[in-house]
Amino acid sequence: MFKKILIANRGEIALRIIRTCQEMGIKTVAVYSTADADSLHVKFADEAVCIGPAAGKESYLKIPSILAAAEITNAEAIHPGYGFLAENAEFSRICGEHDIKFIGPSPEAIGKMGDKSVAKATMIANNVPVVPGSDGEVDSYEEAKKVCDEIGYPVIIKASAGGGGRGMRMVMEASELEKNYKMCRNEAETAFNNPAVYIERFVTNPHHVEIQVLSDQHGNHTHLGERDCSLQRRHQKVLEESPSPLMTEELRKRMGDAATNAAKAVNYEGAGTVEFLVDDDHNFYFMEMNTRIQVEHPVTEEVTGIDLIEEQIKVAAGEKLKPFTLEFKNHAIECRINAEDPEHNFRPSAGEITVFHPPGGHGVRLDTHAYSGYRIPPHYDSMIAKLIVSAPTRVDAIKKMKRALKEFIIEGIKTTIPYHIQLMDDENFIKGKFDTKYLEREFKYTPKED
Amino acid sequence: MFKKILIANRGEIALRIIRTCQEMGIKTVAVYSTADADSLHVKFADEAVCIGPAAGKESYLKIPSILAAAEITNAEAIHPGYGFLAENAEFSRICGEHDIKFIGPSPEAIGKMGDKSVAKATMIANNVPVVPGSDGEVDSYEEAKKVCDEIGYPVIIKASAGGGGRGMRMVMEASELEKNYKMCRNEAETAFNNPAVYIERFVTNPHHVEIQVLSDQHGNHTHLGERDCSLQRRHQKVLEESPSPLMTEELRKRMGDAATNAAKAVNYEGAGTVEFLVDDDHNFYFMEMNTRIQVEHPVTEEVTGIDLIEEQIKVAAGEKLKPFTLEFKNHAIECRINAEDPEHNFRPSAGEITVFHPPGGHGVRLDTHAYSGYRIPPHYDSMIAKLIVSAPTRVDAIKKMKRALKEFIIEGIKTTIPYHIQLMDDENFIKGKFDTKYLEREFKYTPKED
Repeated sequence: MFKKILIANRGEIALRIIRTCQEMGIKTVAVYSTADADSLHVKFADEAVCIGPAAGKESYLKIPSILAAAEITNAEAIHPGYGFLAENAEFSRICGEHDIKFIGPSPEAIGKMGDKSVAKATMIANNVPVVPGSDGEVDSYEEAKKVCDEIGYPVIIKASAGGGGRGMRMVMEASELEKNYKMCRNEAETAFNNPAVYIERFVTNPHHVEIQVLSDQHGNHTHLGERDCSLQRRHQKVLEESPSPLMTEELRKRMGDAATNAAKAVNYEGAGTVEFLVDDDHNFYFMEMNTRIQVEHPVTEEVTGIDLIEEQIKVAAGEKLKPFTLEFKNHAIECRINAEDPEHNFRPSAGEITVFHPPGGHGVRLDTHAYSGYRIPPHYDSMIAKLIVSAPTRVDAIKKMKRALKEFIIEGIKTTIPYHIQLMDDENFIKGKFDTKYLEREFKYTPKED
Repeated sequence: MFKKILIANRGEIALRIIRTCQEMGIKTVAVYSTADADSLHVKFADEAVCIGPAAGKESYLKIPSILAAAEITNAEAIHPGYGFLAENAEFSRICGEHDIKFIGPSPEAIGKMGDKSVAKATMIANNVPVVPGSDGEVDSYEEAKKVCDEIGYPVIIKASAGGGGRGMRMVMEASELEKNYKMCRNEAETAFNNPAVYIERFVTNPHHVEIQVLSDQHGNHTHLGERDCSLQRRHQKVLEESPSPLMTEELRKRMGDAATNAAKAVNYEGAGTVEFLVDDDHNFYFMEMNTRIQVEHPVTEEVTGIDLIEEQIKVAAGEKLKPFTLEFKNHAIECRINAEDPEHNFRPSAGEITVFHPPGGHGVRLDTHAYSGYRIPPHYDSMIAKLIVSAPTRVDAIKKMKRALKEFIIEGIKTTIPYHIQLMDDENFIKGKFDTKYLEREFKYTPKED
C-alpha cells in the first residue's frame, strides 16, 4: 500500500480524500493556491505545498508544479479528485512517466471516453445502447440532414469535444437544422478548438441515471448500482439520490451489465461512472463515462456502505476487487449546497461565512470544507457543502433531508439551502415525477418571508 | 399519531428527540431553565417554555412546572429523555392522571425495575440469570455473614435504592464484612432515604453488555442486540460499541431471550435496556434494567438502521412493533466527549466554547447541543457531545473514530477528546481485551506534548 498520497485538488473533495487516507494510515500531501491558504484541506493534510496563485491554470491545473510537489514530498501516488486534472489523459500519462501512480484509469481509457464520438463508437461495438444518431462525426449539412431524416426529430447536435452540457444545440424540426448545425460547429471551434459535431435523437423527458463502476488492474469489473441525477439547473446537478425512483431490479441488472461492459471495453481501472438517459419505457441510452470520482459519490457510499475513495486507492495499489453482494437497504439523497443566491437567479455569493452551524444526528452526513470564519474565494466553483442523508425509505429520506436542511445555519453569505427546503415539499419531487428539465421548466423557487 | 410532544429534558438528548419529531411531522415543545436559554433545544423546538432557575429540582425535576408547560401548550405526550424524571414512576403516574402520554413504561414497570431487590426477585422468577446472592434484602449482619459464606468472596453490598454505581461496597474477605455492611446501610440511608441493602457475588473481570429491548402496548417484546459498555471511569461509561467484541451468535440469542423475558415479566412498554455482566466463560448475570432511552442508544441505531426515538414514539401512540430481521452489518462505536480536563483528573471545565469544529464525512455521526460561542452551564452533567462512527469492521471503526476525533476541534474549554484519541491506540482496547475496571486499573492517560 502507498505510504504517501498527494491530493491534486481543493475544497471538500480534497478533505474527503484526506479523511480516507488517514483511516487507511496513509500520509497525505495537500497542494494549494495562495487563495486557499486557510482551507481545511491544507490544515488537515500531513504536509502542504503552495503551488501558485489563485487562477486554476496557475495552480491546480499546472502539471509541472503538482509533479514538483509530489517529488519534493516523496508522494508515491496522486489522487486527482474531480474537475481540474481528473480527466486529463496527459496528466495521467505524465504521472506514469514520473513513476508516480495516477489514482484513476490509464491515459488511453481517459482519452477514449473523453472524445464523445470515439466513446459512442466504442459503446456501439460493445453492445451498450446509445441514443440513435450519426455514426460518428457529421462533417456537412447534407450529411446532417440525411441522418436527421432517418432518426427523426427532435435531435441534438453535440460538439465532440464538449460535455457537461456545453457545446449542445437542440433542433425541433428540419427547417431549423441548417442554421443550428452551422452555429454549433462555430461554437465548438471557438470553445474547444475543434469544430467536430455529432447528432443524436432527443430523448423525451428522460431521467439522468448513472451507474457507479469499479474496476481493478486484473480485469475485474463490477458496479454499485445507480444514482438518479435528473434534478439539474443549467446542466448542473442539484440533487442526487440512490436508488433511482424509477429503478426496478430488472432494469438495474440490464444497466449494470451495460455499464460494466463499457468499463471492460476501455480496460478501465478505478472508480468510474457511466451516465445514461432513461425514458419512461425504461429504454436507456449511454451518454458518457466520467473517468473519475464524482461529486455525488456519497449517495452510493450511504446505500452500499462501501468507501469509494478507499476502493480507488486499493485498486490503484494493485489490490483485487473483493466480491460483494449489491443490496439497497436504504435510500440516500445528497443536496449540493452552493454559495449562490436563489432569490437573485443563483448569482454567486462570495465572502466570509460568519456562522456555520452544521446539522447532525442519525442518518446525516456532511462533506464540507467550510467553517465559521471561512472566506469563500471567488476563483472556484460555488459548492461549499454536500449534505447527505440516508433512511430506510425514500419518503423517510426526504423528511430527514428537510429536517437537516432546516437545522443547517450559514450566515454571512447566501446559499441554496432555502431552495432545497422548498424542493423537499414539492409534490412532483416527492412522487419521483421529474426529468432532467423539470427544475428549469416547472419548479419555481418562491422566497419565504419570515 | 401525536400532534405535539413536550420534551422534559435538555442538552443533546432534547435536540435528538426534536430531530426525530421533526422528521415525523410532530410539533415540539422545549422546556428550559434560565441557565439554558441559549441552548439549541430551545432554538430548534417549535415552542419553548421556561420552567425555572438553573437548579435541576427547580426546573427539569419540577413536575408541576413541566405539567403546566404541557397543558399551556396542549402537548399530548411527554418524552423524558434520560436522567432527570425519566425513571420517576411518580412522574409517569401523574402524566397518566393528566391524560398526557408518558413516552415510556407504566409506573408499575418503572417501580419494579427501580427497586433493585424487587427487580432481582422478578428476574429469578422469570428464569433470567442473576448474580448469586442474597434472596432480597439483608437486614442484619448475621444474615449477611450467612449469605456470604454460602456464595463465597469477593462480594458486593448494594443499596436497594441505588444504581449507576452509587451505594455500592466491595468486600474481599469475611473479616471486612461487618464494617462494610454497616457503612453501606448508613450511606444508603443518607443518600436514598432507605437503608435496605442486598448482597451479590463479585463477578471477576466482567464485560458490561446490555441488550436493547423494544416492547409495544400489545404484548410484543423484541430486542435489537447488544452494546458493550465495559469501558468506564468512576462507574460512568466512557465508550460504547456494538457488537460486543466478545459476542457470539449463540450468546446473543441467549442474552436476547433473557432480556425479552425481563421486559415481558414487568409488562414493559417502549425502549428499555437490560444490563448484564458477562464473564470470560460467557456466563451472564442480570444487573438492572434501565426503563428509558440510554445515552449510548446511537450505536444500536447505527448497526440496525432503526431510529429508537421514533420507535418509542410509535409504541407510545399505540402502534404495533413491526417484525424485522436483526442483522449486524457493521460496527459502531460511540465516544462520550465531556467538558473535563483529562490532564487534571477529569475535573469539569465549564466556560465558553470559542471554536467548535465538528468532524464529518462517511460513517461519522455527531449528536451534540454545543456550538461555537456556547457557554457550558456549570449546573448539569459534563457531556457536551457524542461522537459515533460506523464502519464494516471493528478495526475500521476504530481507525475512523481516531480520524474523526483528530478532526474534532473544540477550543475555549478542556475536553476528553485527547483521552479518547489515546484510547484508540491502546493495544488492549484494539484487541477487545478489557473489562469494567480496565480503564481505571490499567489505562494511563499521558498528555501529548505538541
